[in-house]
Amino acid sequence: MAGVRAKFGTVALLGIVGPHLWRTLRPRNGTAQTARGLTSFLAGIVLLLASAAANAQNDPLAAWNNGPAKQTIISFVKSVTDASGSKFVEPKDRIATFDQDGTLWVEHPIYTQAMFALDRVHVLAPTHPNWTHQSPFSAILSDNREAIARFNEADWEKIVAATHSGMSTEAFLGEVRNWLLTARHPQFQRPYTTLVYEPMLQLLRYLQSNGFKTYIVTGGGQEFTRTFSDDVYGIPPEQVVGSSILTKYQDKNGKPELMREPEPFFVDDGPGKAVGINLFIGKRPLAAFGNSSGDREMLEWTQAGGGQRLEMLVMHDDVAREYAYGPAQGLPDTKVGTFPASLYDEAQKNRWTVISMKNDWNRIFSFAAPPQTSQTPK
Amino acid sequence: MAGVRAKFGTVALLGIVGPHLWRTLRPRNGTAQTARGLTSFLAGIVLLLASAAANAQNDPLAAWNNGPAKQTIISFVKSVTDASGSKFVEPKDRIATFDQDGTLWVEHPIYTQAMFALDRVHVLAPTHPNWTHQSPFSAILSDNREAIARFNEADWEKIVAATHSGMSTEAFLGEVRNWLLTARHPQFQRPYTTLVYEPMLQLLRYLQSNGFKTYIVTGGGQEFTRTFSDDVYGIPPEQVVGSSILTKYQDKNGKPELMREPEPFFVDDGPGKAVGINLFIGKRPLAAFGNSSGDREMLEWTQAGGGQRLEMLVMHDDVAREYAYGPAQGLPDTKVGTFPASLYDEAQKNRWTVISMKNDWNRIFSFAAPPQTSQTPK
Repeated sequence: MAGVRAKFGTVALLGIVGPHLWRTLRPRNGTAQTARGLTSFLAGIVLLLASAAANAQNDPLAAWNNGPAKQTIISFVKSVTDASGSKFVEPKDRIATFDQDGTLWVEHPIYTQAMFALDRVHVLAPTHPNWTHQSPFSAILSDNREAIARFNEADWEKIVAATHSGMSTEAFLGEVRNWLLTARHPQFQRPYTTLVYEPMLQLLRYLQSNGFKTYIVTGGGQEFTRTFSDDVYGIPPEQVVGSSILTKYQDKNGKPELMREPEPFFVDDGPGKAVGINLFIGKRPLAAFGNSSGDREMLEWTQAGGGQRLEMLVMHDDVAREYAYGPAQGLPDTKVGTFPASLYDEAQKNRWTVISMKNDWNRIFSFAAPPQTSQTPK
Repeated sequence: MAGVRAKFGTVALLGIVGPHLWRTLRPRNGTAQTARGLTSFLAGIVLLLASAAANAQNDPLAAWNNGPAKQTIISFVKSVTDASGSKFVEPKDRIATFDQDGTLWVEHPIYTQAMFALDRVHVLAPTHPNWTHQSPFSAILSDNREAIARFNEADWEKIVAATHSGMSTEAFLGEVRNWLLTARHPQFQRPYTTLVYEPMLQLLRYLQSNGFKTYIVTGGGQEFTRTFSDDVYGIPPEQVVGSSILTKYQDKNGKPELMREPEPFFVDDGPGKAVGINLFIGKRPLAAFGNSSGDREMLEWTQAGGGQRLEMLVMHDDVAREYAYGPAQGLPDTKVGTFPASLYDEAQKNRWTVISMKNDWNRIFSFAAPPQTSQTPK
């Protein structure tokens, strides 16, 4: 990358996937998924009350199976918070950075923000009558998935420009909040903000209660994520680092507003994550968590700070409870949140911890039932 | 401004002044100033112990004279922190933003960072033998003030490029820290980091102790300011919003580094301050403090949030203890930290508070003696 201001497409900017994405989309199965979701939900309520809540009281990482990943976290935190130890780190330098898509919440079959963009085309259509016969909007409006699958970057740029700019930041935040209230994930048929990983929420709280300042460092939109980060993760807007588009200060009827322009400003992905961490935080993370090649440089940058630090990668290897994709370790390939073999190799070489969702997490979502073989601490 | 990425010169980016600045520079008078500084320093020690410390214990704003400015601050803070009142604001939304140059520390006769750039040309000269006969460096190396006064923007861009880029962020931070240890202000003959306004330090602490999160929002360099913000103001690096140059993630002998490129990235000045506040904080300030036309939009943006908010402008009208410049209110004109009549008028119209350094502050610096007619609280 020639620098953070290199010419990236608007598509890359917002973490929205390339033209081949839709070919990999699973078919919707709304009814079956709704039924499964409801059953899980009810079962979850009962079991949560009976056992999981009690677990959580005793074990702040109750959704993690005992194993190397969990032990690595606990050892690290104990070590850097032990004021009498040689590896003690002052609270002000306890910075932990988390990727969002695929690390804190579900990113398949398509990034949440891409779904927002597509849905928003439908919402805006009545005020754009020409869209019905104008590509790429016509394909979206007629739900022509084959055509959508063939969208190129220029198409996606038009979609993002039409759905993410041309309004004030306040208006945009309002649109995102409204959408999140009603939108449902096509597979789980639940609000996107409930599709957050319970083990990662526990990890956030565990770090926060140990004096860490937790940040989201996402390739997705900074403003988009800020609308729910505090409610969902306990991470306030000022601790969300993300991609952004150009905004312009202007006067509107005697009142200033920040107008969102159809042009990328900062791409917080890949090497941009290291740049963004330095730009927005000005401190090196002590711990960093990701799940895909877009997080590689964030983990490298963290580790290069020296001393005891923690780098972890979530691997999606649980097709039964969530999704399975890599292509590392023989998992199915994907264009969304790719975990390539080269990243796995780098993790091995650098002793980064790879978290197996299947083996390391006894629960994926807070609404899901805890496993029958509960990891009750002795 | 066509947007924050509009083509600004590197000079504007780093808050470094235009070509006409040096004409307004006061002549150095090192010996006399050093003597005055020492006398003040010793007198200050004695009087500080005798009275000022006792004042500070009783009155968190002891360096402020009783008057409308001080009362405005106290009333505002009491109002937004009174949980039983109608104007209560949750701690998470108590955001206060402070301009730095001329608001928190001295900006005359020239911005501190501009002095750093000029000094650094001298430091780098031995490794750039061609500079002795190459403009603009030759003029700096021969201390040719007339020539320096004629520097145009292209000259300043070369100076900034040569002194602020071409090294890693870590190397740059080290250079700034080293320079601050030895550099002395030409008038006061003291380290720049001691030339901070005691009343504003008290205000920062007062706000912090009332649950405010305090930010620096400076037109100057973000990295430059981060090197001392925590020590000097109690403001950590992640709460410094400023101008920045492009940085690039790269590999150096197997270790990643962030290389500073000779290209502006974000200009945090004027309308850019409103943009920067939204970008870095994502919340509207509840209180904002500035001193020049570069702070106009920050105050407008703050006030436009509605409800009870606080906007204040420091006016440099104290030639005896610091400097006097405007040109508002008939004060001498300046190119550095201009407070034009139009800003004064806007302040009057919008009921922003203008702080008179001469009348509202009984002490300017912590090293200066408190006034003989001390404002002891009853």
